[in-house]
Amino acid sequence: MKSDIEIAQSAKMEPICKIAEKIGLREDDIDLYGKYKCKVSLDVLKNQKESSDGKLILVTAINPTPAGEGKSTVTVGLGDALHKKNKNVIIALREPSLGPVFGIKGGAAGGGFAQVVPMEDINLHFTGDMHAITSANNLLCAAIDNHLHQGNLLRIDQRRIVFKRVMDMNDRALREIVVGLGGKINGFPREDGFMITVASEIMAILCLSNSLMDLKERISKVLVAYDLDGNPVYCKDLNVQGAIALLMKDAIRPNLVQTLENTPAIIHGGPFANIAHGCNSILATKIALKLSDYTITEAGFGADLGAEKFFDIKCRYGKLKPACTVIVATVRALKHHGGVKKEDLNVPNVEALSIGIENLGKQIENIKKYGVPVVVAINKFVTDSSEELKFIEEYCDKLGVKASLTEVWEKGSEGGLDLASKVLNTIENEESKFKVLYDEKLMIKEKLDIIAREIYGAEGVTYVATAEKQIAELEKFKLDKLPICVAKTQYSLSDNPALLARPSGFKITVREVKVSNGAGFIVVLTGNVMTMPGLPKKPAAERMDINEDGSIVGLF
Amino acid sequence: MKSDIEIAQSAKMEPICKIAEKIGLREDDIDLYGKYKCKVSLDVLKNQKESSDGKLILVTAINPTPAGEGKSTVTVGLGDALHKKNKNVIIALREPSLGPVFGIKGGAAGGGFAQVVPMEDINLHFTGDMHAITSANNLLCAAIDNHLHQGNLLRIDQRRIVFKRVMDMNDRALREIVVGLGGKINGFPREDGFMITVASEIMAILCLSNSLMDLKERISKVLVAYDLDGNPVYCKDLNVQGAIALLMKDAIRPNLVQTLENTPAIIHGGPFANIAHGCNSILATKIALKLSDYTITEAGFGADLGAEKFFDIKCRYGKLKPACTVIVATVRALKHHGGVKKEDLNVPNVEALSIGIENLGKQIENIKKYGVPVVVAINKFVTDSSEELKFIEEYCDKLGVKASLTEVWEKGSEGGLDLASKVLNTIENEESKFKVLYDEKLMIKEKLDIIAREIYGAEGVTYVATAEKQIAELEKFKLDKLPICVAKTQYSLSDNPALLARPSGFKITVREVKVSNGAGFIVVLTGNVMTMPGLPKKPAAERMDINEDGSIVGLF
Repeated sequence: MKSDIEIAQSAKMEPICKIAEKIGLREDDIDLYGKYKCKVSLDVLKNQKESSDGKLILVTAINPTPAGEGKSTVTVGLGDALHKKNKNVIIALREPSLGPVFGIKGGAAGGGFAQVVPMEDINLHFTGDMHAITSANNLLCAAIDNHLHQGNLLRIDQRRIVFKRVMDMNDRALREIVVGLGGKINGFPREDGFMITVASEIMAILCLSNSLMDLKERISKVLVAYDLDGNPVYCKDLNVQGAIALLMKDAIRPNLVQTLENTPAIIHGGPFANIAHGCNSILATKIALKLSDYTITEAGFGADLGAEKFFDIKCRYGKLKPACTVIVATVRALKHHGGVKKEDLNVPNVEALSIGIENLGKQIENIKKYGVPVVVAINKFVTDSSEELKFIEEYCDKLGVKASLTEVWEKGSEGGLDLASKVLNTIENEESKFKVLYDEKLMIKEKLDIIAREIYGAEGVTYVATAEKQIAELEKFKLDKLPICVAKTQYSLSDNPALLARPSGFKITVREVKVSNGAGFIVVLTGNVMTMPGLPKKPAAERMDINEDGSIVGLF
Repeated sequence: MKSDIEIAQSAKMEPICKIAEKIGLREDDIDLYGKYKCKVSLDVLKNQKESSDGKLILVTAINPTPAGEGKSTVTVGLGDALHKKNKNVIIALREPSLGPVFGIKGGAAGGGFAQVVPMEDINLHFTGDMHAITSANNLLCAAIDNHLHQGNLLRIDQRRIVFKRVMDMNDRALREIVVGLGGKINGFPREDGFMITVASEIMAILCLSNSLMDLKERISKVLVAYDLDGNPVYCKDLNVQGAIALLMKDAIRPNLVQTLENTPAIIHGGPFANIAHGCNSILATKIALKLSDYTITEAGFGADLGAEKFFDIKCRYGKLKPACTVIVATVRALKHHGGVKKEDLNVPNVEALSIGIENLGKQIENIKKYGVPVVVAINKFVTDSSEELKFIEEYCDKLGVKASLTEVWEKGSEGGLDLASKVLNTIENEESKFKVLYDEKLMIKEKLDIIAREIYGAEGVTYVATAEKQIAELEKFKLDKLPICVAKTQYSLSDNPALLARPSGFKITVREVKVSNGAGFIVVLTGNVMTMPGLPKKPAAERMDINEDGSIVGLF
């Protein structure tokens, strides 16, 4: 088997202007970034106002395990399979972050024979969106420290600056720093820290904006600090929202690329899936819906986090109505949920599977609470036994849900034709009655209680003292009437990564509550969330190289 | 008079593919970045190997003053004038840095009716080169701190890490920081600091590389730290030169845009003119020379720094042979050199001019030492008296140098036709006998002594104790056989900004000496050099905005 980058490099790409033409974009609607990438004008939404939207399909997964599920791969493969069936389809994915590329992971944009290309560009600077967000974020930070230095008219409390600098790099040394050292000319010394760019609220804003003016409005509302009286200070108080929006004028336009099989793919926005909502941009999804009959998108982590936030945050703000949800699972991952160790996952074990499959069961149950029809995709591995596969199919059958074996990693679109048929069939026969889970006008604790009980299966929520205080403060400043964005381990339905399958009898513990007022959600943290990754002992960067002829090695 | 951005926005740009076609580039040679920017393939140099080079014209200036000289404006205007005369001309400029755009300055890419466009894009993210350099620089930094954290096999002395992080932002709070706080998981605490991206050695390397492989080789040689035994540690010891070169695979390709009058302009690279050499990239200049009969370029600050480094560093490494040098001066600036205060510069004053003009005289003398013919461009202001202008012309005449009045800011190419004629005439009638000023194989002190005496007119050089020690160390490690890059005030021929016109009887004091071993020069600092600017009381960012229709305000 070839490596991902070898497969990607041997792809026969079509010029991106051809791909754009096929989905009805005119020459004026796109700006080329080289021959195989382009940005799409937001005017498309205005010009196509009257045309009806396609069907929106979300690909999500069971709680992830070290065994791997292949959610992005299935998303791409399903798109290719629908494309193969001559459907007018667009895939809408998140942009990868540069930082992790040099860490453990290398590049990623699907896998095997279900990838988006040009893989190297998508994984490196792409069209510069991440860099624009980094600049926008750091301009606001420079404005904050400059304000302190220039007399601090707003009386910002330098101990309570909540907006941090970012860098698109895995760099643990920048997590906790002291800035402003060196005396008067360098400003006031204070504690600060860098996050990775995708953790920036600016990224979440990019992804939740419905227009450039909406983006500017959201930026102006970002809470940056508290003043010495304890009152909130917003970005607009520093008057740099215009400059920040200006820095994002190109980044706000979605990027069009293609899959290995020339299926159009719009890749735009990639917010963290813990302290943010983990979905691609609303604008990208809306443009895809206008230009296609079927738009396939995905959300970060398992369905308890990814799908929940997709529905309750993204669909709420974008007024989107998903037609179908695909939940990806693998035999190996379900056995892991059933207690099997990583080294034993290749051994058939229906008993473990029968325990672990309850994780899938709960995720199916959850999606149904939103009124959205479900299809299960079993991402096949060579070691899966027919007995195990049959067990899953029968399990789904009992829940009234179709399951499909997919082999898109190995076979591309051919391996996803059955899944595509089942998705089409489901959309045709089951009407989506999508509704969000809760009213954002409820109190913070009421909203979180609904998510914890309904989605996680918890018996309730406990709050540490700090969190109680933070909630009271948000309520005092009327910053609480927003949807909830939970930061929680992705490995369990609970907030304890060791509780696999379908845990019960647990409570969620909330340690910290803060508002992303520009993005428009309340972040509820149930543990320490790492917002700046580090590099491993042997970083992927060390195996990467580029040769005289421009050929790239080690980026996989 | 319209503002620069208003003029720029009303420009009738040609599609950049048309501009590319006119200078003989094939479709495969370019990658579009939108409709008005493209990157040019380095293969052009290979494919055009046999064709002869055009004539290289350097635009430089007297020592700058608060009165302003308009070097970039004259560079663009001279290009437009040659274009108007149907000459095959390409302008090769530096890329502006994003940081200062939000500071005092706003955007800049020439001025008035002599600008490069699209001005907004060139001043914001352009084609992402600055961001690629930022990422490349910071990947190396992350690798250094990660190495410390992961066991420090190289025994790096954390007190002697010389390679700093960068950001393309004016942010004084990042000048002096402490990183790695927060305990074991965040690495080792140490002092660090950020520079602005254009001050990065990676930028200087981009500009001095003759190919992608040369770039990789230079990156591998960057001195990053000393170990606990005092021995140098290089980038290659961390084995990330391949990943860094990979990050720069697009940034190394020059960018093609156009002037208001559709003259082709290649804008590529913009290293600091103090701790680096302040010239656009060798690759851009070489490609321009292959594709044009006349290539016009410029260098940072006055001729004592800009032209000196252009000749002794850039031309040395690029094996370039300049055909002519244009020195830009204004009546106002020369009067300032003659002791006139800023508020009195509009009053005719031939006496002050006769003192200040010695600065121009010295710069002419200097250029001649390199064997390059000189033309003087007097950038005209409305307040200039005919008596003053006549004085300058006669002064130049006595030195055997042609002087031309230019009005390109107000009139575009029309205002530069006379200058263009004089430049063409000079190239035709005076042969360039270009040679560098010194042999880089000399000792550091010998090389600097030549520059100080010959170019600055100093009586010698004194070294503080630290500098002596640093020179001894560089000699010990055989890192001293490189050209010299002086960081010195741009306002004076001396190292004291108060000594205007043509000072004499002074010595240069060297405070610090370090090597940019990848870029390939020894940096000699004669005072404190600010490598990270700050924002002013009222940052330009506060007046910037973008409206619903995408129109931009405040970026000038």
